[in-house]
Amino acid sequence: MHPAVTLVLGGAASGKSDFAESLAVHSGKARVYLATAQAYDAEMRHKIDRHIARRGAGWTTVEAPLDLAPALQGLTGQQVCLLDCATMWLSNQMMAETDIGTAQAGFLSALDACQAQVIVVTNEVGQGVVPDNALARQFREAQGRLNIALATLADRVVQVTAGLPLALKGKLQ
Amino acid sequence: MHPAVTLVLGGAASGKSDFAESLAVHSGKARVYLATAQAYDAEMRHKIDRHIARRGAGWTTVEAPLDLAPALQGLTGQQVCLLDCATMWLSNQMMAETDIGTAQAGFLSALDACQAQVIVVTNEVGQGVVPDNALARQFREAQGRLNIALATLADRVVQVTAGLPLALKGKLQ
Amino acid sequence: MHPAVTLVLGGAASGKSDFAESLAVHSGKARVYLATAQAYDAEMRHKIDRHIARRGAGWTTVEAPLDLAPALQGLTGQQVCLLDCATMWLSNQMMAETDIGTAQAGFLSALDACQAQVIVVTNEVGQGVVPDNALARQFREAQGRLNIALATLADRVVQVTAGLPLALKGKLQ
Repeated sequence: MHPAVTLVLGGAASGKSDFAESLAVHSGKARVYLATAQAYDAEMRHKIDRHIARRGAGWTTVEAPLDLAPALQGLTGQQVCLLDCATMWLSNQMMAETDIGTAQAGFLSALDACQAQVIVVTNEVGQGVVPDNALARQFREAQGRLNIALATLADRVVQVTAGLPLALKGKLQ
Repeated sequence: MHPAVTLVLGGAASGKSDFAESLAVHSGKARVYLATAQAYDAEMRHKIDRHIARRGAGWTTVEAPLDLAPALQGLTGQQVCLLDCATMWLSNQMMAETDIGTAQAGFLSALDACQAQVIVVTNEVGQGVVPDNALARQFREAQGRLNIALATLADRVVQVTAGLPLALKGKLQ
Repeated sequence: MHPAVTLVLGGAASGKSDFAESLAVHSGKARVYLATAQAYDAEMRHKIDRHIARRGAGWTTVEAPLDLAPALQGLTGQQVCLLDCATMWLSNQMMAETDIGTAQAGFLSALDACQAQVIVVTNEVGQGVVPDNALARQFREAQGRLNIALATLADRVVQVTAGLPLALKGKLQ
């Protein structure tokens, strides 16, 4: 049996999305890509295009930059959902100035009730020096709390470093 | 037997203080909270208050922003001391412009001689890009050296990521 | 038998160079230090001098800030080479405005063909908040991709935190 919820955690360009995609492919289930990214500038557009090209065919893409609940509620037990990523979702919430606590509670509740296997990708952002600006400090606090909540709910947590997975909760296989 | 000194290392908002507190509670000993934080602004005041509320009753709090030796020397074998945290202590030293090498030697010597079980919380700050300003670079070098010295002295070192512990030295239990 | 290529990964001041040096010393082979650092300012000069003093005698030093291939090609199976570090090398490439993809391909190809045991030190730089400036973001993306490529090629990957090694690929001993 596959774990219901897997959290894949890593730094920027750590290979976490690649690893999460390989988990989805190996599940053998119908694959849904739950995309949180918004192409608000050229740099982000380029990054999204690179990810789309890498994934290739075989994915149904659902875009949900802010409200993940409807997308998660629509999934079935025959599907595997790759949610990429919780960091972009959190960033979208902060830019939209929603209440983070309420948004997080809604996300976690929908994740817990989801019928599909879900793989959530998220970033580690708290291991540098204290950021100069208050918004960045607020973001890393919120990201840390979200990661803790996701890791608590998840059946499996995998940290990816230089493309290499390390199970922090549950087993890799 | 409990390890004499445990180092709990993690990023910002990684759940390291929660984990360290649970270690202290599970020791069954009389708990002393050795607080290094100074409430020099509203953001820090808010953070301190949140930590106090979470810990709840059952703790004796000792404030020691700069000189940890007297507090550590006063402890007995019936106590467990949670020192939260070495990063704030280092930051206080740098703001006070003390000699870091001398201050660190004094801290480590008092830690080594301490009769109580001690759990030291510290931050990982060296895994982001090189900071723009020289003081931040100096801080992350000093923090790295302090963490290495603490990990060398400690009987047990636990890294906390998204609330999940990983033993880097010694055993979790 | 020693692993042909070992990658030693860690944050700033994490003890990664110390650990890598101990691996080289314990190999019992003739030691070559492949230095990528350029002393372009006093801070870097100080850091280089500190590293030289720590290593002590018993090393042949080869300086190669940009083109690593000739140095790697000149090594034999009786030698162990400590390449310190891939992050400085990448930074040198970016300052020289070379094509990173081409430079990386040349480095990896020379590493793969090298007759000596090689220990490559590299930095984790992607675990802080998103940097403000585009060059820093570009750097951490490039560093992440380089680390993944090096980890893929390496027989052994060791992450160093507070001086403590954790094998992410292969075995410590």
